[in-house]
Amino acid sequence: MAKLVLIRHGESLWNKANRFTGWVDVPLSDRGREEARVAGRLIRNIPLHRAYTSLLIRAVETLLLVLAEAGGEKVPIIKHPSGRMKDWGKYQGEPSLELPIFQAWELNERYYGQLQGLNKAETAQKYGPEQVKLWRRSYDVAPPGGESLKDTAKRTIPFLKETILPVVVSGENVLVVAHGNSLRSIIMHLDGLSPEEVVALELATGVPIVYEIDAGGRVEAKEVLGS
Amino acid sequence: MAKLVLIRHGESLWNKANRFTGWVDVPLSDRGREEARVAGRLIRNIPLHRAYTSLLIRAVETLLLVLAEAGGEKVPIIKHPSGRMKDWGKYQGEPSLELPIFQAWELNERYYGQLQGLNKAETAQKYGPEQVKLWRRSYDVAPPGGESLKDTAKRTIPFLKETILPVVVSGENVLVVAHGNSLRSIIMHLDGLSPEEVVALELATGVPIVYEIDAGGRVEAKEVLGS
Repeated sequence: MAKLVLIRHGESLWNKANRFTGWVDVPLSDRGREEARVAGRLIRNIPLHRAYTSLLIRAVETLLLVLAEAGGEKVPIIKHPSGRMKDWGKYQGEPSLELPIFQAWELNERYYGQLQGLNKAETAQKYGPEQVKLWRRSYDVAPPGGESLKDTAKRTIPFLKETILPVVVSGENVLVVAHGNSLRSIIMHLDGLSPEEVVALELATGVPIVYEIDAGGRVEAKEVLGS
Repeated sequence: MAKLVLIRHGESLWNKANRFTGWVDVPLSDRGREEARVAGRLIRNIPLHRAYTSLLIRAVETLLLVLAEAGGEKVPIIKHPSGRMKDWGKYQGEPSLELPIFQAWELNERYYGQLQGLNKAETAQKYGPEQVKLWRRSYDVAPPGGESLKDTAKRTIPFLKETILPVVVSGENVLVVAHGNSLRSIIMHLDGLSPEEVVALELATGVPIVYEIDAGGRVEAKEVLGS
């Protein structure tokens, strides 16, 4: 039975500054880098075959530091889709030597619209704490121009079911490093949570959650490491 | 007079394995991460206004660790071009709080074509050491399917002249973190080197090269730090 490992990225410079981040592409703080290394040490005994992450650098940095500590023999290589220059994808690689990394916008954090960049305390003063709590902690209320958690789930859950789970079912151990809300929506699906249960779910940064997935793509076991 | 700082990325996992890398997207080794931090400490007294880097993660990682150590007050934010989702670029930012980072394929490493992924010693056995030396150290001989240094210069020098230097001339201190060959071609232009001189130029990893640029975009002074 293969494993699916989920890790939320470490502290970013805007987590620290208490600002709404969403898709604004802010790097990790040094504390976040250390959280990533701690997470890597916790999964040393899981031989990984591939990884998925978002387009945002705080998740990519976390993933690379997790892998540096997890200490597998394979070299992580980011697999870009063929793009701007036709030759981009020419190198086919030697799968035995590599741990391929795939980036997907579907794993990005919840898009926070007009709240992105605002300080959370100032936003509470401006719109009232109840409204801000509603945006942050309801399932289907979206902030102006942004996504509700339900909207986020509409892209993360299909990506999980159509892209990630078939790979795990085929026997590969897969690592996913993503964000608070993209992972909450994925866990909602895996654990069969209700909307009320998912909004109450808090995910710690840098804590690996390990699922064992059976041949039918169903969860056989779940373990939260180091908690 | 504003400054232009050039830094070659730290050691990657394929530098370590002695393989041709080119555009294959391999992360830093932990030694490379430490080289980046050392470089950051060397430029602590230069207040930076913006940074440019390539699309490749070894350069991005280096840049972020340089900035973590350089210790400016501004938060580095990667500025993505509007892309796949129309809202991507909606957040306009507060320039006083941020150090914008721009990624450009023009700053990517020399594209190594069919040599990418091959071990350098094995390649010398297969093609002969003289041929490999010609590919690596001539100005205008390209490896199969790849770029010569002259080809690389055809994209890096226009990017320097049309995008980077006008910003420096406007008064901003600019940091560029890129690759051995993309930086050699940029230095060729700034220092007025001949093709023979540029092929003999070796750039150390993680060593900041600081140019002072005058109002006409010309080099007034050059200093290599910590060397």
